Parts: sequence; C-alpha cells; structure tokens
Amino acid sequence: MSVTISDIAKEAKVSSATVSRVLNNSGYVKEETKQRILDVIKERNYAPSAIARSLSKSETNTIGVIVPDITNAYFGEIIKGISDIAEKNNLNIILFNTDNYLEKEIRALNLLREQRIKGIIMTPGFGEEKFNETYIKTINNINIPIILVSADVKFTKLNGVFVDNIKGGFDATNLLIKEGHTRIGIMAGLLSSEPIADRLEGYKKALEENNIAFNNKYIYYGDFKLDKAYELTKKLFEEKDPPTALVICSNMMTMGVIKALKEENKDIPKDLAIIGFDKIDFLDMVGLNITYMEDCPIELGRASMDMLCDIIRNTDETGVRRLIIAPQIIAKGSEKRL
Amino acid sequence: MSVTISDIAKEAKVSSATVSRVLNNSGYVKEETKQRILDVIKERNYAPSAIARSLSKSETNTIGVIVPDITNAYFGEIIKGISDIAEKNNLNIILFNTDNYLEKEIRALNLLREQRIKGIIMTPGFGEEKFNETYIKTINNINIPIILVSADVKFTKLNGVFVDNIKGGFDATNLLIKEGHTRIGIMAGLLSSEPIADRLEGYKKALEENNIAFNNKYIYYGDFKLDKAYELTKKLFEEKDPPTALVICSNMMTMGVIKALKEENKDIPKDLAIIGFDKIDFLDMVGLNITYMEDCPIELGRASMDMLCDIIRNTDETGVRRLIIAPQIIAKGSEKRL
Repeated sequence: MSVTISDIAKEAKVSSATVSRVLNNSGYVKEETKQRILDVIKERNYAPSAIARSLSKSETNTIGVIVPDITNAYFGEIIKGISDIAEKNNLNIILFNTDNYLEKEIRALNLLREQRIKGIIMTPGFGEEKFNETYIKTINNINIPIILVSADVKFTKLNGVFVDNIKGGFDATNLLIKEGHTRIGIMAGLLSSEPIADRLEGYKKALEENNIAFNNKYIYYGDFKLDKAYELTKKLFEEKDPPTALVICSNMMTMGVIKALKEENKDIPKDLAIIGFDKIDFLDMVGLNITYMEDCPIELGRASMDMLCDIIRNTDETGVRRLIIAPQIIAKGSEKRL
Repeated sequence: MSVTISDIAKEAKVSSATVSRVLNNSGYVKEETKQRILDVIKERNYAPSAIARSLSKSETNTIGVIVPDITNAYFGEIIKGISDIAEKNNLNIILFNTDNYLEKEIRALNLLREQRIKGIIMTPGFGEEKFNETYIKTINNINIPIILVSADVKFTKLNGVFVDNIKGGFDATNLLIKEGHTRIGIMAGLLSSEPIADRLEGYKKALEENNIAFNNKYIYYGDFKLDKAYELTKKLFEEKDPPTALVICSNMMTMGVIKALKEENKDIPKDLAIIGFDKIDFLDMVGLNITYMEDCPIELGRASMDMLCDIIRNTDETGVRRLIIAPQIIAKGSEKRL
C-alpha cells in the first residue's frame, strides 16, 4: 500500500497543502509543524512521487541513451562515462539497446520523445545505410536536445562528440609508412559506416602525401565481424605482392586477422605488421602486443554528457556543437618492419 | 516550443476534454471529429506526455536495472537479455551503474523508489560485505518487486535468478579429479561474495566425495582482479608440492593466471591445468583453449525479466521465487592431465 500526501497530512494533523509546502520547500510553515510532518514522512516511509513532481515541472530528471550493442565493452565504457557525469548532475538514464537495427533506433527515439526527458545521447548503429526518410524526420522533429557520440548521422547536422577518424586512418597508415612499409592494406568495415569511410579517406591521404600509389586491391571489404576478416586474411598471402602491413578498422576484425595469422603460422609483425582500431583488453595479457588507435570511449561518454548538461543549462544558445577528439596511437611493436 | 492539448483542441475546434478522450480512447467522440483531431496531432507532431499518462495510472512503463560494472561485458550481456524481453513487453529501462559501491546501490534503489516503476532487476555488487543495516532496510522497504540476478544478497530472501555456484565449483573440481589431478588449487575471489563462497563449498565437496584431503594451502585468496591473481600465480611454483591444477573463480583472475604462466614459460595444461569461470571471448581466437564454467548471462537476463513480468501480471501471488540455473562445463582441453 503506497502512502499518499493526504495520509501524511491526516497523521500530522495538517492540510495536504501544508505537506506539499514542506515537500517543495516553498511557502512558510512553522518549524515545529515542519518537523512533525518530516517525522511522519520518515516513519511512514513516504516517497514523494517523482512523476507528480516532474509533471508540475513538465519534464523528468531523465536522459535517454541509445547504443547499438550493449554487449560490446566499447559501449559499456561510453555508458560508464555518461553515467559518471549524469550521477553528478542527478540525472537518471533510460537505456535502449538497438542491436544495430534502424527500426529499433526509431522506436527508441519515439518512446523517448514521449517521456519529456531532458535530452538524448545516442550512438547510431552501423548496420545499415542511414538515408532513411522516417529516420531523418524522426531525428529532426524530436524537439529534445540530441548529442551523438562516436558515430555521426549523415544527411543532417547534429550536436555530437566524435573521433577524428580521418586523422586516425592517416596516423595509422603514416606510422606504417615511416617504418618502411609500402604495400599497406586496409581492412575496412561496411562503407556505409561513416567512421570507416573517414578512416579510408585518411589512409588514402597518407599514401598520397608519401607518394605511394593507391591500389584498390589493398582494400579488404570486411563487415566488422570476426569471420569475414578471418576469411579475407586466410587468402591474403595467396595474392601476388601481398601487403606487408595492414590497418584494421575494428576490434573484432583485428581478432579475425590474428586468428587467421595464427593458423597460417604467420608472425606479427615479421610476416604482416598490423595496426588495429580500439583497445582489445586481453591481447597484452596473452603476450600479443598489438598497436592500436585509442578512442577512449569513457572520455567520449563524459564529453557527450558534459555537452548535454551545457545545452540544458544554456537553452538560449543555439547552433550546432561538434567536438572532435583526436585518437591516440598506442604503439606496442606490431607496426614494425622486421 | 512544445505543443499542448489545448493547442490541438483550439486548432481542431473542439474542447480539450474531447482531445483527451481521443488520446485515451475513452468515451464517445464522433468518428469525423476524431479523425480531425488525429490529423491535427499528426500535423503538429504532438507527443502525448507519457508523464501525464503515467500519473493517471500512478505508475510508469519503466523498470529499473542496477549493475555493478557496465564496462564488464558479462553485465552488458545480462542487460541485453533483460532488454530483449523488456522491449517485447513495452517496458523501458532506467539504468544505474554502481561501480561496486554499496552507497551507489542504495542511492539507485531510493531514486527508483521515487519513480513509481514496475520493478527492479539488480545484480548486487561484489566489493563489500553486504551486512549493512541501511542497505537491507532500503531493500526490504522498497515496496516494488525486486529480482536479483546472478548474485544474491545475504540476510534477506529475495526473488532472483541465480547460478548454482556450488554445483559449478563441484563440477569443475570433479572434472579435474577425473583427469587424475589430486593437488588441485582454487583461486577464490573475496569471500564476502556469495558466488565465491558457494564455489569454494562445491570445491570442498568434490574433494571430500573423492576422498582427497582438503588442504588450506591450496586456496589462493584473489580479489577478482587480474593483478592479484598474477602475483599469486607467479609464486605458485615456488611452493613445495605446488598444485597441478587450478580452478579459477572469475574471468579477470583467469587472465592474470594466464599472464603469469606465459611469463614463467609454463605450459597449459602440462605444467598447470586450469578451469575458469565465465567465458573470455578472445582466448580461443589466439589459440588458448581454456575450459570454463558458462553462466550464460544473456539467459540470466532474460529469465530475470520473464520472472519480473510474471510477478507484475500476478500481483496476488506472493512468496519468494528463486530460479537456480546450473552452469555448463565448456571443455576445451585445458583441464587435461598430460
């Protein structure tokens, strides 16, 4: 049985309005009366309804967070970053996991719109081409601040915290070139993914600046998944002039490449130098020291939540805010030319 | 500018009450009028406030989920399982990450209590002894259905979906005994953690049933973390009669053990056979085939959400529900006696 304001009022022998004044800390209530009401509230274990309070303020103390894959620790870290800052600002998180489905993203956005929340932080999924009329319309009509994190939505310009993936692709490729590699491949994910398109652009730019001819055959079209990367790598050494180095555009694909190299008894970096994207926690521990480009997802999460708080506080400031964070090279030796 | 019911009413040339009737699908409204109202709603992109609706029903379409470490994929998988079933039942998730701090758990519970949600699914943290008066009192006074998942809270009896960790400890130890091992160690985590205490109990039971004397020196007191497990393993082979096999009670400790064995040039399973708890995704891919006890966290998440839905639907049924799922041995060879 839940306790209501009028139960409290009755027991404290005051009007409901007086209880209300104490709860909202508004209007004058005699100190003695106030104390009596607070005692009853404590005794009866009364929780003032957040719903009732938020109705009067017409919004909740809540933000929405949408991620494509909650089982991927990368997004766990983004959420941790968001959650750290949200907690400091007394904001709760409503979480949606979309499994990379566009229709689930649209559903989540519509559900959040109904919640009258303070804002949304979202990583759009990678699975599909994003030019979907309903999707863009949903995003543009949402009337709630949206912050994108880590991945952008094409065909519209939204607030967001992003990684400079052109620089990431450039720096990775450039490091391999400085090591003396010239036949450098890139294991790309789906090109509909904006981070992948950007990394590929950076890759081409690095080749160009170093006067190395771009060769289409050194682009391997993976799909972010381990199996495809594994298959592509298995066939790599059958090519004429196989690459001596490979930039790999996601952590799961890095695992696929490593698995194939192990099976083929190929040495890293002697037979193939590699640079991955995103940390893979366990590799170091098993003695595989793989150089990678680090996004710092916890920092991305924190920065996106900071941005949202700032937008909530300064509602009169308009204009799109975009923060681009440069990825860091974490060099561990797998990029060497031996 | 958000659109209100009275804006809609004005534009559709009806009263607010009529708009309300259409929104709530209650009371008679002429079909023609209804269509006109719906057209205006669509045109003006009006989202009926879920807050206003939930107030009239006095609860929201929301559940709370509390996990100790969102960056651990184990909990990501639990949340995925919860989220899959929640979505089918049109329930939203408010997420809290506690970083294993008891006070953050208490805070989350109190915040959720204020939200008038339908229920809470929670994995209590492992970091601290749980006999804390405020904590137990908070849980017992919450007046919302709580389902524990994967870990129990001592000193009170709550609904939950758990893993049979006594059986887990027993089966792991028993498999090593069947392989011919007699000097079997166990890398335990903090004993204040109920899963660890249970696994240790299962370990002792298996030794006893096989007439192997229990020896205190074969218990290694880790703390769930990699570093401590690494240190303990480094010193393992300096002992007189070191163990020939080790049951390791968490995935991070398994990584610590493997790291130490690699550095000491010890072979698995020749120098030390091991059985871990919980899957570590990447080990297979780098050619390390480690036998482990599998919890299936996605299934735990699904089962806990199913249980919560059932409790929400059958509010008149009382009594504590506890579902105990047996972990599976995934044998990959690291348990062998060579």
